[in-house]
Amino acid sequence: MKREKGLLIVLSGPSGVGKGTVCAALRRHDTQIEYSVSATTRKPRTGEQEGVNYFFKTTEEFENMIANNELLEWAKYVDNYYGSPRKFVEDTIQAGRDVILEIEVQGALQVKETFPEGVFIFLMPPSLKELRSRIESRGTESKDLIDSRMTVAREEIELMDKYDYVVENDEVELAVERIKSIVTAENCKKERLINIYKQLVKE
Amino acid sequence: MKREKGLLIVLSGPSGVGKGTVCAALRRHDTQIEYSVSATTRKPRTGEQEGVNYFFKTTEEFENMIANNELLEWAKYVDNYYGSPRKFVEDTIQAGRDVILEIEVQGALQVKETFPEGVFIFLMPPSLKELRSRIESRGTESKDLIDSRMTVAREEIELMDKYDYVVENDEVELAVERIKSIVTAENCKKERLINIYKQLVKE
Repeated sequence: MKREKGLLIVLSGPSGVGKGTVCAALRRHDTQIEYSVSATTRKPRTGEQEGVNYFFKTTEEFENMIANNELLEWAKYVDNYYGSPRKFVEDTIQAGRDVILEIEVQGALQVKETFPEGVFIFLMPPSLKELRSRIESRGTESKDLIDSRMTVAREEIELMDKYDYVVENDEVELAVERIKSIVTAENCKKERLINIYKQLVKE
Repeated sequence: MKREKGLLIVLSGPSGVGKGTVCAALRRHDTQIEYSVSATTRKPRTGEQEGVNYFFKTTEEFENMIANNELLEWAKYVDNYYGSPRKFVEDTIQAGRDVILEIEVQGALQVKETFPEGVFIFLMPPSLKELRSRIESRGTESKDLIDSRMTVAREEIELMDKYDYVVENDEVELAVERIKSIVTAENCKKERLINIYKQLVKE
């Protein structure tokens, strides 16, 4: 069946839940999904590649992108900008291919304003205790910072209501299978197919 | 995560599309889905087992079931009654398990009146030509009967709008995978999970 438009899939959830790990695992699977690469002003870390991990920009370049409405969503964290370039996403779905964005909760809500027809997936820890232990296990953050992250996480979980799906990240491979199922199911939704089939009956 | 209620999944579509074959293949897969067995007044065919293929009833028994509102949907085809017993379906979803009904399009619309929250899947032939050739390949029906089945099929495809999903039955195993994905995705829907998670945050 010919596709009318691709899906915009937004994968989000509280910091520490494992969005990056799940998205990387999904990329290793043989799916037809394209990945939106973020732009950032932060410096590349060892091994990070331009156009694969990020598009690396100067502050001036990034601020121009904001001014020219070239970003679907953007935010500033610890003096660095992060954002999702609009053109790649729009071109991909227009070409009938699905595209996934892995972003923070606030960014996801920004995207929802422009793309209410997107598929919004909230990645959820099995429990708040487990989330805390995942953040602690990074070993990079003080107790105060961890406490404040947990407060933010609780607030973000309250925003789950704005999403379409909730996927538990109990095990990465299980979460990946659930996301793949959601994409398959969304592509079977009547709303997305009915015009194609009405044409079929006419012929 | 503890389930609140199971899903009622209704698999339907035009006669000849392969509902029975797809449903039988789904039953052979290791899914957690329960199958609703229909009641009928038609005589058992060789190999058919009570409670596996059908619940075999006398006309009087069946008419009592209708009178007592014990059927979710029922219809009469060629002098025989067919219907879906209500109790098994209701008990199964109350116990938090998913249940699938494989029924005709008219029956599916009856079920939708009592269970609007059900998941309604329309099984679709790859083309009307293919549907015709599937009906012809049974070799049991005259040209006139096949023509009239095709007219009904066109009318039924117009009713696709009442369904949630459309699954193409190009290959049985592909159709089964799509249905499994739909069930997984439906179980990840925010509406079905949000109360459980709100509880989690409170704790």
